Amino acid sequence: MLRVALFGCGRIGRVHAAAVAAHPRAELAWVCDPMEAAAKELAGQYGAEASSDVAAVLADESVDAAIVASPTPTHVDLLTAAVRAGKAVMCEKPIDLDLARVDACWAEIGALSPIVMVGFNRRFDPSFREIRDRVAAGEIGRLEQLVITSRDPAPAPKAYIETSGGLFRDMTIHDFDMARFLLGEVVEVQAMGANLIEPYIAEAGDIDSAVVVLRSTDGALAQITNSRRCVFGYDQRVEAFGATGMLTAQNQLPTSVRYAGADRSEAAAPYQNFFLERYSAAYALELDHFVTAVESGTAPSPSFADGRAALVLADAAAESLRTGGTVRVAG
Amino acid sequence: MLRVALFGCGRIGRVHAAAVAAHPRAELAWVCDPMEAAAKELAGQYGAEASSDVAAVLADESVDAAIVASPTPTHVDLLTAAVRAGKAVMCEKPIDLDLARVDACWAEIGALSPIVMVGFNRRFDPSFREIRDRVAAGEIGRLEQLVITSRDPAPAPKAYIETSGGLFRDMTIHDFDMARFLLGEVVEVQAMGANLIEPYIAEAGDIDSAVVVLRSTDGALAQITNSRRCVFGYDQRVEAFGATGMLTAQNQLPTSVRYAGADRSEAAAPYQNFFLERYSAAYALELDHFVTAVESGTAPSPSFADGRAALVLADAAAESLRTGGTVRVAG
Amino acid sequence: MLRVALFGCGRIGRVHAAAVAAHPRAELAWVCDPMEAAAKELAGQYGAEASSDVAAVLADESVDAAIVASPTPTHVDLLTAAVRAGKAVMCEKPIDLDLARVDACWAEIGALSPIVMVGFNRRFDPSFREIRDRVAAGEIGRLEQLVITSRDPAPAPKAYIETSGGLFRDMTIHDFDMARFLLGEVVEVQAMGANLIEPYIAEAGDIDSAVVVLRSTDGALAQITNSRRCVFGYDQRVEAFGATGMLTAQNQLPTSVRYAGADRSEAAAPYQNFFLERYSAAYALELDHFVTAVESGTAPSPSFADGRAALVLADAAAESLRTGGTVRVAG
Amino acid sequence: MLRVALFGCGRIGRVHAAAVAAHPRAELAWVCDPMEAAAKELAGQYGAEASSDVAAVLADESVDAAIVASPTPTHVDLLTAAVRAGKAVMCEKPIDLDLARVDACWAEIGALSPIVMVGFNRRFDPSFREIRDRVAAGEIGRLEQLVITSRDPAPAPKAYIETSGGLFRDMTIHDFDMARFLLGEVVEVQAMGANLIEPYIAEAGDIDSAVVVLRSTDGALAQITNSRRCVFGYDQRVEAFGATGMLTAQNQLPTSVRYAGADRSEAAAPYQNFFLERYSAAYALELDHFVTAVESGTAPSPSFADGRAALVLADAAAESLRTGGTVRVAG
Repeated sequence: MLRVALFGCGRIGRVHAAAVAAHPRAELAWVCDPMEAAAKELAGQYGAEASSDVAAVLADESVDAAIVASPTPTHVDLLTAAVRAGKAVMCEKPIDLDLARVDACWAEIGALSPIVMVGFNRRFDPSFREIRDRVAAGEIGRLEQLVITSRDPAPAPKAYIETSGGLFRDMTIHDFDMARFLLGEVVEVQAMGANLIEPYIAEAGDIDSAVVVLRSTDGALAQITNSRRCVFGYDQRVEAFGATGMLTAQNQLPTSVRYAGADRSEAAAPYQNFFLERYSAAYALELDHFVTAVESGTAPSPSFADGRAALVLADAAAESLRTGGTVRVAG
Repeated sequence: MLRVALFGCGRIGRVHAAAVAAHPRAELAWVCDPMEAAAKELAGQYGAEASSDVAAVLADESVDAAIVASPTPTHVDLLTAAVRAGKAVMCEKPIDLDLARVDACWAEIGALSPIVMVGFNRRFDPSFREIRDRVAAGEIGRLEQLVITSRDPAPAPKAYIETSGGLFRDMTIHDFDMARFLLGEVVEVQAMGANLIEPYIAEAGDIDSAVVVLRSTDGALAQITNSRRCVFGYDQRVEAFGATGMLTAQNQLPTSVRYAGADRSEAAAPYQNFFLERYSAAYALELDHFVTAVESGTAPSPSFADGRAALVLADAAAESLRTGGTVRVAG
Repeated sequence: MLRVALFGCGRIGRVHAAAVAAHPRAELAWVCDPMEAAAKELAGQYGAEASSDVAAVLADESVDAAIVASPTPTHVDLLTAAVRAGKAVMCEKPIDLDLARVDACWAEIGALSPIVMVGFNRRFDPSFREIRDRVAAGEIGRLEQLVITSRDPAPAPKAYIETSGGLFRDMTIHDFDMARFLLGEVVEVQAMGANLIEPYIAEAGDIDSAVVVLRSTDGALAQITNSRRCVFGYDQRVEAFGATGMLTAQNQLPTSVRYAGADRSEAAAPYQNFFLERYSAAYALELDHFVTAVESGTAPSPSFADGRAALVLADAAAESLRTGGTVRVAG
Repeated sequence: MLRVALFGCGRIGRVHAAAVAAHPRAELAWVCDPMEAAAKELAGQYGAEASSDVAAVLADESVDAAIVASPTPTHVDLLTAAVRAGKAVMCEKPIDLDLARVDACWAEIGALSPIVMVGFNRRFDPSFREIRDRVAAGEIGRLEQLVITSRDPAPAPKAYIETSGGLFRDMTIHDFDMARFLLGEVVEVQAMGANLIEPYIAEAGDIDSAVVVLRSTDGALAQITNSRRCVFGYDQRVEAFGATGMLTAQNQLPTSVRYAGADRSEAAAPYQNFFLERYSAAYALELDHFVTAVESGTAPSPSFADGRAALVLADAAAESLRTGGTVRVAG
C-alpha cells in the first residue's frame, strides 16, 4: 500500500482524500493543514492521522508520497520540502503564479530526480484521452485545428479572483495544458479579453471572458474560449479537426433523459455542474496514474516541466492581451 | 409533358396540384371537384381548367393521367372510370374501406392492365427509403425486429372520425404499408387498443391509441405504436433492428437550432408539425416516380395490390382487437 | 455498520460484494458459497470470512442482513432460512421460476413481517428513476403509452438457457417490473415470440426475440421489445408518452466522443456493453436503499410482492405465446 | 410579376435562375453572359431571352431588376450600369476585392438612392436567422461570445485561388457578414493563418486555414474558424453564448437516419456537401426578400453598406495576419 500524506483539506483536498481512500493500493496516512480542526475532521473520515506540522508529517518515514492541495502560494515550499524528504509528489496546478519561482524551485530539486506530477486532471478525462489516443493513432490524419471551449458555471468570489493570478494563470492554464496535451509544443500566442460579467473582476484588474489563439510547432492552429460564467453548467468541450476527420468531446449530461413537449423537443437537463461531477472519473484515474508511477519508479505525466510550460503560455497570453500583438514563445 | 387531371381539391388535392406544377415534366390540365368554385380557384393558380363533370374531364384525350384525391368513398368509382378512359391513375390511400369493394374494383379493371399507383407517400420519404435500401443491401444482416412509431399531432374532428373507417383503416394503414415496405409480407397480426384522448372517438366506436404486433413470412417481428394526439409534433419514426446492426429514422426538426439555459440544454423546437411539412419531399418524389412510370410504361409502386394488402392487415387488426386473439393472414 | 452476509459469489455476487465494500455504512461480514475456494477468494478481497455452511453463517448474530445472489433454484430456501434467522434479505430476481413456490415461501415467512427486497436493479437507474419521478410529478400529463426496449448484447450459453425458465421469466422479468414501476398494475398481456438467433435456444423450447404488449389498470398501453442479441451493445431504453409530453431514457455511451469523417458523421462508440457497466450506479443506489431501509426499519421497495407480480406477468406472457390470445391478470 | 435579368450563368447564376423561376411573383426575362451559348442554354430552360450584350439587356424597359452573378471583377461595372438603367440590383458578394473601388462605386450611384442588395445568402438560412431573432428577443441575455465555424468541403482549384482576393476576402467575408448580422459593428480584428492543405495555395500567397477574433462595439468577442478543406462535408455552425443561455446552429444531415453496429452507434451520413444543398432554402428566401423589397420600394438587407463593411473586416484581418497585431476598425 502506498501511504499518502495530504497537504491542504479544502475542496480539492477532499477530492484527493476520497480518491486515495477508494484506491485499492493506496491509503491516506496523514492530513496536514494549518487549520488543525479541519485536518482532524477529514482525517477522521478515512482513519488517517491529522497534523498542522508539515515537518512532522514529512518526517514520517512510512509515508511514500505527498499530495499538495494547499493554496497556490504554498505549493513551491511544500513541493520542495516533500521532495527533500524523499517523497513522491503530486502537486495541484499551478506550481506557482511566478515563473521565476517555478524555475528557482526546479533549480533546487531537479538534481534529486524527483517524482513530481502536476495535477492537470483533465488529461485523465476518458473523453479527452480518447481523442488524444485516436489522434495519435492517425484516425483524423494531421491535426490542423483544435478548438477548446472552457467556461465555468459561475465566477469565483471577489477574494479568490484578487489572488488568482488572473484568468490565464488560474483558469486558462488547464486549457493551455490541454492544448499541449493534444497539439504538442506551442510557438505563438494571441489573446483578446473582455469584462462582461462581474464588475469586481474588472476592479481586480482581471478579465472574465477571453479568446486565445495558439500556433503549434507543427503549424496547427488552436483556439481557446473562456468565460467565468455559464448558466447551463460547466462547458467543457474539445474539437480536434484533422485532414481526414474530426473528433469532438461533447458536454456531459447527468442522465440520458430527454423531454419533448408542446414547446420543445429533445431537451436534456443542464450539463454537469462543475469539476467535481464532470471530472470525477478523471480524479480517480489521475491518482491511479500517480500511484502506478510511484510503484514502478517511472516518471509520471504531466510532469513539473508540463506545469512550467502551461505557465509560460499563460504569461504569453497576458502579454498579448496587454500589447495587442502576437507573442512568440520557445516551442 | 404529362398532362394530369386532379380529382378533389381538398388539403391533399392541393398538395398534389403544387407537386404537379413544380414537376419539370408534368402539367396540371384539369382540376375536377363537385364544388366547382373550389375547383376554379385551385385551377386558376396553376393555369389549369376547372370542372365538376368527371366524364367531361376524362373525355379529354390530351389528359394522360389522373390523380384521385377525393373523399375515400369516391375512390373506386373515379379510379375505375379513369382506367376505363385509358388514363394512368395515382389514387390516394385507402383504395376503399371495404375489402370486397376493392376486390370488385380490381375484377373490373384488372384485365385492362392499368397503370395504378396507390398514394402511400411515406415510401418516398428519403429517410425511410434509405433504411429500406440499406437493409436490402445487407447492412444490418437479417432484419429481426421493426418498430414503427406513428402519432398524429392532434385528433381529427368528430365528423372525420365517424366516416374514417376506424384508426386501423385510416391511420395505421400507412404503417401497415411501411411494415410491408420494409419487411415483406405479413402472416400474423395482434392488436391492442385504447380510448385515452377524446370521448367522441369512443362514442364513434373507434379507438385513439393502439399497439399492433406483426409477424412476417420471414419470421421477423414488427410493432406499430399509434396515437391520435402528440403534443410535440408529428411523431414519425422507424427502427430496423437486424442481426448485425440497427438503422433508425428519427423525427425531423424545423431548424438545427439548439438551446441551453439554466434549466435545460440541447433543447430543439417541437418536431415538424404534420404531413405537409414532414413529407413535403416525399410528395414530390412520389409524383416523380408516378410520372416516370407513366412515361416509361412500367408498373409504379406501391401498386393496387399493395393498397389491398394494407387493407387486409387493417381488417386483421380490427378482428384481433375484437377477439383478443392473434389473426393469421395469407402472407 | 450494517454487517452483511453474501450468499453466492458468481458474477452478480461479486457486484454486490464490491457495492457493500464501497458503502460507507455497510461491511461484508461473510461470503458463503458451496465452492469454498471461490468464497475464500472473494472474502479475502474485502476482509470478510468465508464459509460453505449456510447455517453457520446465519447463526452469526452479528450479521444484520443477507444478500441472496446464488442460483435461482436456491433463492427460496436461502431467503426463508435468512428470514427465520432474523436477517433482512435482499434477494436477486427472480424469487423463483415457479409461482406456487413463491407463494409457499411467503406463506411461510409472511407472518414474520420480514424485511425483504427483490433485486430489480433497474428501478435504481438514475435515468429510469428520473422518468418515474417526472411522470409522477405530472410533467407529461396522463401516461398513455410506455415503450421499453431491452436487448442483451449476446445470448447466454446453452446451459444457462436450458435452466433459465425461459425468456419471459429470465430476461423480460426485468421489463415487467419496469412496466409496473412506471405504469402501476397490469390487467392484460399479449405476447408474440420468435426464434431468430441461436438454434440451441429453440432446441431448449425457448424463444430469443419477443414483443409483449400490456394494458394497465389505468388503461395505458405498454410495449416491451426483447432480443437475446444486440451487436451494438446493451440496448436499454424507455419511452414514456403522455397527454402533454414525452420523456425518454436513451442508451448510454462510454465517453462523449463523436467522430466525423468522409463516410459518416456524429458517430459514437457502441453503447455500454452489459449490465455491469450500464447499471453500475444502479447497483450502488440499490444497496444504499436496502441499507437505509434496514437501518430505519422501513419496508424496502421493490418488495417480495413486486417480485411475485413480475412473475405473474411472465407466466401470463408465456400463456399468451402458447394460445395466441390476450391473457387477463388480476391487476 | 417582377421581371429579372440575370448576369452570369455559372454555378451561382444557375442557382439564382432556378430561384427566380420557382418564385410565384418573379420571372426570368434575360440571361446575359459573354459566353452566349451558355446564356442561351440556361435561358432556354426557363423561357427567357439570352444575350451577350449588357447594354441591350439593360435597355429593356420591361426589366425591373438585375441579379449580378458574374465574376467578381465585373461586379462594380454591372452594378453601376444596372443602377443607372433604373434597375433594382441583387449583387453577389463581394462587391469588389478593392475597397477603393467599392467606395468609388457608391460615390457614383449613391445619389440615385438605388435599391441594392448584396448576396450574403447565409443571413437567410432559417437556423442562423432563428438565432438572430431569438438573440434579439433577449432569450440568452446579453450576447457575450460568438463562435462561427466555416469550413469548405474541398479547396477551390489553383486558378480560382489565384484571383480570389485571398481567404479573408473570398471565404471569410461570409463569416464577417454573419458576425455583423449577429453582433452588430466590430471594432477590433486579430487573425492567425496557416498553410496546412494544398501547396498551391501557399504558392499563390494565400492561406488555407485561419482563426479570426473580433471584438464588437458592445464588447462581445467573436471567433471565426476557417478551413479550405473538410472531409466530412460543409461545416457551417454558429454558437451564440449569452449571459443567460446559449443558442447553437448545428450542421445539417441529408436524412434523419442513424446507424448502430458492432463498431459504432448513432452514426449519421456526412453533412450536406456544399452551399447548394446547405443553403438551398436560404437562396429561395433571399430572392423572396429581394422581390418583396423591390415590390414595396423598401431597402433590402444586407445592403451595399453591409457589403462594404464585410470587406473592411477582411482587409483588417489581412493586415493583422501581416503584422501580428490587433487592428482597430471604425465600428
